[in-house]
Amino acid sequence: MKPKITLKDIAKELDVSISTVSKALKNSKEISKDTRDRIKAFAKFYNYRPNNIALSLKNRRTKNIGVIIPDIVHHFFTTVFRGIEMYANQMGYNVIVCISDESFDKEVINMEMLANGSIDGFILSLSAETQRKNDFTHLKELLDQGIPIVLFDRVTQDVACDKVILNDLEISRESVTHFIKKGSKKIALITTENYFNVSESRKEGYLAALKDNNIPFDENLILTLPHDLDNTKLITEFFQKNKIEAVLCVNEIFAVQCMSVIQQLGFKIPDEISIIGFTDGILSRYSSPKLSTVAQHGEKMGELAAKMLIDRMETTKVVEEPFRTEVINATLIKRGSTIN
Amino acid sequence: MKPKITLKDIAKELDVSISTVSKALKNSKEISKDTRDRIKAFAKFYNYRPNNIALSLKNRRTKNIGVIIPDIVHHFFTTVFRGIEMYANQMGYNVIVCISDESFDKEVINMEMLANGSIDGFILSLSAETQRKNDFTHLKELLDQGIPIVLFDRVTQDVACDKVILNDLEISRESVTHFIKKGSKKIALITTENYFNVSESRKEGYLAALKDNNIPFDENLILTLPHDLDNTKLITEFFQKNKIEAVLCVNEIFAVQCMSVIQQLGFKIPDEISIIGFTDGILSRYSSPKLSTVAQHGEKMGELAAKMLIDRMETTKVVEEPFRTEVINATLIKRGSTIN
Repeated sequence: MKPKITLKDIAKELDVSISTVSKALKNSKEISKDTRDRIKAFAKFYNYRPNNIALSLKNRRTKNIGVIIPDIVHHFFTTVFRGIEMYANQMGYNVIVCISDESFDKEVINMEMLANGSIDGFILSLSAETQRKNDFTHLKELLDQGIPIVLFDRVTQDVACDKVILNDLEISRESVTHFIKKGSKKIALITTENYFNVSESRKEGYLAALKDNNIPFDENLILTLPHDLDNTKLITEFFQKNKIEAVLCVNEIFAVQCMSVIQQLGFKIPDEISIIGFTDGILSRYSSPKLSTVAQHGEKMGELAAKMLIDRMETTKVVEEPFRTEVINATLIKRGSTIN
Repeated sequence: MKPKITLKDIAKELDVSISTVSKALKNSKEISKDTRDRIKAFAKFYNYRPNNIALSLKNRRTKNIGVIIPDIVHHFFTTVFRGIEMYANQMGYNVIVCISDESFDKEVINMEMLANGSIDGFILSLSAETQRKNDFTHLKELLDQGIPIVLFDRVTQDVACDKVILNDLEISRESVTHFIKKGSKKIALITTENYFNVSESRKEGYLAALKDNNIPFDENLILTLPHDLDNTKLITEFFQKNKIEAVLCVNEIFAVQCMSVIQQLGFKIPDEISIIGFTDGILSRYSSPKLSTVAQHGEKMGELAAKMLIDRMETTKVVEEPFRTEVINATLIKRGSTIN
């Protein structure tokens, strides 16, 4: 018997990317005919079948749920995970986690591995690279095979499945409006690259609040930072160059780095500069002054995602319910870093 | 064909604990003969075999490693996980995580589930409840079946396997000695229940440093707190009752809670009270003043655990190497919360 072969093996053997193999096997026109033929021939020779165990097990439940998160050292994702576990355990399901590490390849490999008979369905938040590449073949393939998926937080319109998202636009608008009501006009946004759907929505909310209040948009007041690194130098330059009265940061780490820079530069928080962050984690609660922040209710999001997945897996209806997108309402928690 | 039955199913059906089932099937004398017979008869009727897929797959590698950690919202465990992933991925292995949530039952269920053919070996840190119960039957069973296990941080002498630990005693002694050198004599220890092997070692190190310096031990200066909750009230009372000049906290959360209480009570850090914590996480780095802390080098610990496991899994030697316990040397990072 030939050994069981995976997407990764094929990619390695033929020296192409996993994404190319996956697309070629789906006969995508994006891949040249030559390459497609070569990949298909190789896959056929080694008897490759996508998630073949899963197919044969359709009626055998494992009672396991697979969760794929982009990062394990991240308060928001870990609290979502807690919510998933809490609900899943109550319903008699176990939860298995894999980390994509913001990598497309790892997301694909992990999903393929778990779909091989270990789990009944997936809950996931897309990796940064997947959002940047805009390639969702691996998700579509699993859905086609009848494996249900619930996307949370970092989602895409290109995949038809159940989703749980935050009202990012509205809460960002509410936060910026709070700054304006308390007298700020020079309001900055510190954000990440826009391939994250959440960053995009938060920027839209920021712009909407300015527009609501007839404050002209100044693009110099938007600072885009690489993900979760130490950005002290960039933030310092930003505050030296621009006169800023308030700043909205799209995550907790940026907010705390920002606070530390502002204090080093000799400004008073919140009297001279106010700050609001995203994620109500331990950093926000133990910073000095305590950080005003957007609570994303990760546990609630996780519980809802688990409920949607389990409902879908356990449905006995012949005609399935249409896919739903549920919205969790974030809360602005006002603490010492804003004038309240 | 009868459905495949698990330890959990048997426990539920016969209304006994998972631990009882597991022991009865190993014919442990701790369980009454009646109960043992009843459990064994039931298991036999349903054709229960421990991790039977794993047995048949001994020569088929999944190239997956199972990791069980007690808590996902915990900086130290997540950095160990990162180290495991980094090394495992380099060596062509995938990593699957399950969280025991400090529960014995969840640890057993998760291990049983993964041992069912999904993984080649385990890396784990024992749950609080497992350490309290002192019941390691589930680990011994897997080892007997030839599934290798590496324990890290929270380990036990009762299981013969590879281990990676921190030099907790020595680093705790070094930290307390630092306080003493800088003039402190009234030194407190804020710790967790002693069923954690790590808390025990840290307390031994604390006592050793006092003894080295002929400072009499005062048991009023030890505060034992429940795990990771908000302990503001207990800490406040502790500092009101006792005159304290320095305090060693066995984790980062306790240290930051402590810092906040001390400042509320009007004491100056480090002039009047010095603090050292364990775990060099974001809390320590962003607190004000920045926290002096014991860096546990979680990534290094994870990498080493993964290396030990993979070496063991891939060995081709007929006579296996004896089990090893490797020690990671922690580092005391001196920041603003101590006189340096």
